[in-house]
Amino acid sequence: MKKIEERKSIENFYAVVLAGGAGTRLWPLSRELTPKQLLKLFGADSLIRKTVSRLKRIIPEERVYIVTSKSLFDEIRNHLLSEYPPLKKLGYILEPLPKNTAPAVILAAWEIKKIDNQAVIGVFPSDHYIEDDEALVESVLSAIDVAKKGYLVTFGLKPTRPESGFGYIEMGDEIVDGKAYKVKRFIEKPPVEIAEKLIRTGKHFWNSGMFVFSVEKILDEAMKYLPEVVEALKEIDGYAEEEKSMFAEKAFEGLPTISIDYAIMEKSESVAVIPVEIGWRDVGSLPALEEFYEKDERGNVTIGNIVNIDCKNSLFYSDSRLVAGIGLDGLMVIDTRDATLVCPKERAQDVAQVVKRLKDQGREEYISHRHSTRPWGSFTLLEKADNYQVKLIEVKPGAKLSEQMHNHRSENWIVVKGTARVFLNGEERILHAGESIYIPANARHRLENPGKINLTIIEVQIGEYLGEDDIVRFSDDFGRGDK
Amino acid sequence: MKKIEERKSIENFYAVVLAGGAGTRLWPLSRELTPKQLLKLFGADSLIRKTVSRLKRIIPEERVYIVTSKSLFDEIRNHLLSEYPPLKKLGYILEPLPKNTAPAVILAAWEIKKIDNQAVIGVFPSDHYIEDDEALVESVLSAIDVAKKGYLVTFGLKPTRPESGFGYIEMGDEIVDGKAYKVKRFIEKPPVEIAEKLIRTGKHFWNSGMFVFSVEKILDEAMKYLPEVVEALKEIDGYAEEEKSMFAEKAFEGLPTISIDYAIMEKSESVAVIPVEIGWRDVGSLPALEEFYEKDERGNVTIGNIVNIDCKNSLFYSDSRLVAGIGLDGLMVIDTRDATLVCPKERAQDVAQVVKRLKDQGREEYISHRHSTRPWGSFTLLEKADNYQVKLIEVKPGAKLSEQMHNHRSENWIVVKGTARVFLNGEERILHAGESIYIPANARHRLENPGKINLTIIEVQIGEYLGEDDIVRFSDDFGRGDK
Repeated sequence: MKKIEERKSIENFYAVVLAGGAGTRLWPLSRELTPKQLLKLFGADSLIRKTVSRLKRIIPEERVYIVTSKSLFDEIRNHLLSEYPPLKKLGYILEPLPKNTAPAVILAAWEIKKIDNQAVIGVFPSDHYIEDDEALVESVLSAIDVAKKGYLVTFGLKPTRPESGFGYIEMGDEIVDGKAYKVKRFIEKPPVEIAEKLIRTGKHFWNSGMFVFSVEKILDEAMKYLPEVVEALKEIDGYAEEEKSMFAEKAFEGLPTISIDYAIMEKSESVAVIPVEIGWRDVGSLPALEEFYEKDERGNVTIGNIVNIDCKNSLFYSDSRLVAGIGLDGLMVIDTRDATLVCPKERAQDVAQVVKRLKDQGREEYISHRHSTRPWGSFTLLEKADNYQVKLIEVKPGAKLSEQMHNHRSENWIVVKGTARVFLNGEERILHAGESIYIPANARHRLENPGKINLTIIEVQIGEYLGEDDIVRFSDDFGRGDK
Repeated sequence: MKKIEERKSIENFYAVVLAGGAGTRLWPLSRELTPKQLLKLFGADSLIRKTVSRLKRIIPEERVYIVTSKSLFDEIRNHLLSEYPPLKKLGYILEPLPKNTAPAVILAAWEIKKIDNQAVIGVFPSDHYIEDDEALVESVLSAIDVAKKGYLVTFGLKPTRPESGFGYIEMGDEIVDGKAYKVKRFIEKPPVEIAEKLIRTGKHFWNSGMFVFSVEKILDEAMKYLPEVVEALKEIDGYAEEEKSMFAEKAFEGLPTISIDYAIMEKSESVAVIPVEIGWRDVGSLPALEEFYEKDERGNVTIGNIVNIDCKNSLFYSDSRLVAGIGLDGLMVIDTRDATLVCPKERAQDVAQVVKRLKDQGREEYISHRHSTRPWGSFTLLEKADNYQVKLIEVKPGAKLSEQMHNHRSENWIVVKGTARVFLNGEERILHAGESIYIPANARHRLENPGKINLTIIEVQIGEYLGEDDIVRFSDDFGRGDK
């Protein structure tokens, strides 16, 4: 096997990571602003960071593009910057409006074509769990060759059960010996009995939602099967740079909300499938968590601070508080700082009803977590009232927050661990544990950890308006402007 | 009916409220330091405050004595002082060691006899729910007359079900026409089948655990049936005042742990029973909570911030956080700031196993709540780490904390609502919302709310030791010394 970097095929290869999904199916673990791809439940790293790491085995970081929504952009970039090693060179492509995968993929192809009109792109969901990175990398390299022949390449997962929740791909004639095949047809989520038959043929695979194709080919096919998206992108490009954002939203408004599978893959006549065995796992619902942890002798999985008396086949998760279960069977108890879910495992999908109710009520517990990561560290909301809130802020050694100002709130900072360097209206001060500083509203200020250990401060905000968006940024180590 | 205060019979009457029970059967609502009698789940007031209020219909507050343990004393007095109206004139009798009700009652009789050797005392548990105060008061007045004839008077509750968890009293010959009867025998908790038979006779009542007797009579009987307790009390009285506390503990160590029913009532030949109908209810376990709240059409009781999807016959309680239940049947979910219990209602008694495990591990969640009341207001622990903790403190209008000093911690106070007057090493300062002050270790300080609305401050404590007992009190509005 040639070293990857020596292979000529990857010269024009770019990766597109789809990360626009809000995904509250894992509520209360996931939230509108903390979708599944940002969770670290499936190992030490999040699914999106695992996805990017995998791609960095093939191409440098700067050729990986994250496609996401405007509302998720900050959270996702913060997340990708905050873990070690920080991912600083990634590209970002923002969907003007969420319209499912077809418009997102076509937009990505459209933008990457501007950089390299010979580009071949690989499209990868950000929230899939894949065990065998090596195997996937090999398959992607094969796929690039097939894509260069003018195919839209899909990856077919060998089915392990007659799952009725996935789409299936039937393979046809061979394209590359023993590796790639023409796709005969796509089969939408079939009933279990049909799925059983499909599996028995040995010619049917689960549709993985990963694709490789040249930008030229996918845009040609888009022009055939979904021309309004290509027209919208052309229209947007006609506007001056400063107007684009506004008009892009307008142009996307009229587009259909549709998946790339349904809009193009199932219609195109040039689709190929590469069967893969990559240790792929679905993490579509909370009980899937169980596959990532060891069960006790009575079939329970307990994660966190749990007291379990006589329970069986149950799933307990707590991120900080104490959870005690007595005599439960087949239940899951999922506990976070601000919300707890109790539900039989087989009704996990009905968490959607809880989320809907919270959304209708505009509740915080649907939107965000109390704990939030930032490129410089993290913060946790400890208490919230009408006119004040209390946060615990952790700043990594050497990290700096942006120089900023708030119009509506004053802040008191009390250092409880480590050393802080604070710039306040141009004056510098060093604070140690026990020392505090008052930041009046409208004062320019900046917080920095000059030390070698984490800095922890308690921040007490007081004001008539306490939204995160009351912030004017003057300079920022992480390229976050004041809009 | 004569006005109570005109009745001659109450002249020598005193009430003893038994409040030494730690009672973690309602965990996580109750804790070692927040037993059932302090909870406000059964109406707007706690059970102990309801008990005292009831007694104040008969006698002035200063003739009511609370018997409790050393470890609960602070919590109970704080509680009784902190609600409106504050109960400032109560007497307190501290059990040297918890030894069940017999030593506690004999101790109370012993102490009250020193004040009034003609005293008749009524003994009342602090954690029973009684609907009909009027009816109880009437029965107690009758009981005083019977007690003066030399009887140990019990109150018999008319059974409403063949309960196997209570003791029964069988009535014998009439003493006072249609009101009081001699007790024929006591029956320890019988099996359901026996209980059914007992009920059918119409001559059996539940033993309510409330008693009225003269101190002379109960001490006579104690001398007969439990002389070691009386001997111990005599011995303690022999010591000088400053040595008493130490020797009292030593004297109590060897005493049996035994209930007054078992030790004396079941043996004495002078026991009477007064049948009562007072709307008494058992609150011995969490499912009993249901009786105090309305059920929805599917049999659920939801208290607090609950989302309920398709649940039935379930009990949800949350004191602050969001709890979501899906498809649950017959379950209870009890959620507090630091701990959640999930358990089928019929296994409620097994909460003892959880408590035992927490106790063995020395866990905070067994001992105390994060929210705690004080005579001047309350505090809530928001965050706790090795070297710092963050509290939200509320001070009532006009209230003052003690003047105090800490050896091991410094404090930062940030006012977030209301106005604070702070005395620091003799200097006075007024602080408004947004203002803060630093209290170094070993500085004398005092916090006061001079205003008309609640004062809220965020306190950040930093130090090598953060225990509540690192406090030296110089002066206190509530008579709490530096001990």
